[in-house]
Amino acid sequence: MDQQTQKNGFRLPEKKKMEALGRLSCKAAHNFNNILGAIEGYATLAMSSLKADDPLRQDLQEIRGSVARAAALGRQLTAFGGRQMSHKAPCSIDDIIGKALRRPELAPGGGFRVETRLEPDLPGLTADAALLEQALANLLLNAREAMPGGGTAFISSTAERLESEAVNSADPAAAGNLFLRVSVRDGGPGISEDFFEQLFEPFFSSRKKGVGAGLGLAFVYGTAKQHNGWVEVKSLPGQGAEFSLLIPAARR
Amino acid sequence: MDQQTQKNGFRLPEKKKMEALGRLSCKAAHNFNNILGAIEGYATLAMSSLKADDPLRQDLQEIRGSVARAAALGRQLTAFGGRQMSHKAPCSIDDIIGKALRRPELAPGGGFRVETRLEPDLPGLTADAALLEQALANLLLNAREAMPGGGTAFISSTAERLESEAVNSADPAAAGNLFLRVSVRDGGPGISEDFFEQLFEPFFSSRKKGVGAGLGLAFVYGTAKQHNGWVEVKSLPGQGAEFSLLIPAARR
Repeated sequence: MDQQTQKNGFRLPEKKKMEALGRLSCKAAHNFNNILGAIEGYATLAMSSLKADDPLRQDLQEIRGSVARAAALGRQLTAFGGRQMSHKAPCSIDDIIGKALRRPELAPGGGFRVETRLEPDLPGLTADAALLEQALANLLLNAREAMPGGGTAFISSTAERLESEAVNSADPAAAGNLFLRVSVRDGGPGISEDFFEQLFEPFFSSRKKGVGAGLGLAFVYGTAKQHNGWVEVKSLPGQGAEFSLLIPAARR
Repeated sequence: MDQQTQKNGFRLPEKKKMEALGRLSCKAAHNFNNILGAIEGYATLAMSSLKADDPLRQDLQEIRGSVARAAALGRQLTAFGGRQMSHKAPCSIDDIIGKALRRPELAPGGGFRVETRLEPDLPGLTADAALLEQALANLLLNAREAMPGGGTAFISSTAERLESEAVNSADPAAAGNLFLRVSVRDGGPGISEDFFEQLFEPFFSSRKKGVGAGLGLAFVYGTAKQHNGWVEVKSLPGQGAEFSLLIPAARR
């Protein structure tokens, strides 16, 4: 176990390792993107010289579609590295949680439901609401997948004033000491010790296979990082797992 | 400094971090390769329907060239992860060093030369000679680049019988205790402490920029790993750096 364990029993992914993975992800994405840009350029050029009914258009369209898939993969890697495009603005965590919960992939069904425990009057935050919504949706989807037979996932929000040694922001001075904690808890089997270390690594998945699998938690990790926050995780063997996203509250 | 330091003053890259980077590299390459295969397929299909003088052939050829570049990038990432295609056979380290030294990019010039100090009658090894030759060429090229004003690089080979705690093979039982050490030493400025940690990470380069830059030492790292060996590095500030490749000798 390399993870740092917090006073509250939550654990953090190993910092130096995660930083190195973030660097590699961004650089690999950047290198592939340079080449993909050239492919896209030639495919577009070739298409522009074809008549509307030329059967070759279909092949070129398929090439462009594949480039788009590869570019999406590159964006996921960049997101993990905490360097995705973002537009931060004042927003409310209640609104973000509400939007995540209204996503169709999180609709109740198959015995799955989500219970919310939101603290009233939480401070605001300055964030990219769309990215945080996606991160929370990923955590909830992860909870759903941890309970294939159905069950209740809990999402809670609270504000925490932290001692500086408990602050894991990349830039602690900018973060301050007041944080919003959004936690998602499932009633699944918990996380085995073997998996703990790799949980937030891109492409790690104990369940899914195929292109792009295992990027959900990596996205959560990178999005937290990009907001000068961090992720924590706690496993209760046989009782479930709990993931927390900590994001600095807006200064007043 | 997270690196483990050996008795002889050589240092090793941090193991868990490097393992995680290796996993990510292989999986990212695999994911991109799946998509690149589709692009290559459609480009080939489209070309086959064109006449020999169709100007569109040029665009499609450019697309295939870009796919080949991306595939080469993927191969470098896979190599770093220690999972490149390999064909191991009995071979001699003297032959491998000799071939590396005859490469045109290592020809003496601009004040650069290589001096060899090869121990006679070294044990044989079971290895992919082409991969080891490339790894040694990368180390020598690295030495050349560390001395832009010219200078002498030294390449030496020796056999070492190691105590088991000094063996850093992934599979120590298969490696045994007899190793070939090939070292490349330059007379450059040495490696600054800041760079040490990232030295073998893919895309790390203190000098080069552009697609594929910074993959030379990552290749050395992965090739050592793939041969159940490892790399060690020592920096002598102001006097140069020394990289060693340790590979198990063949059992007799």
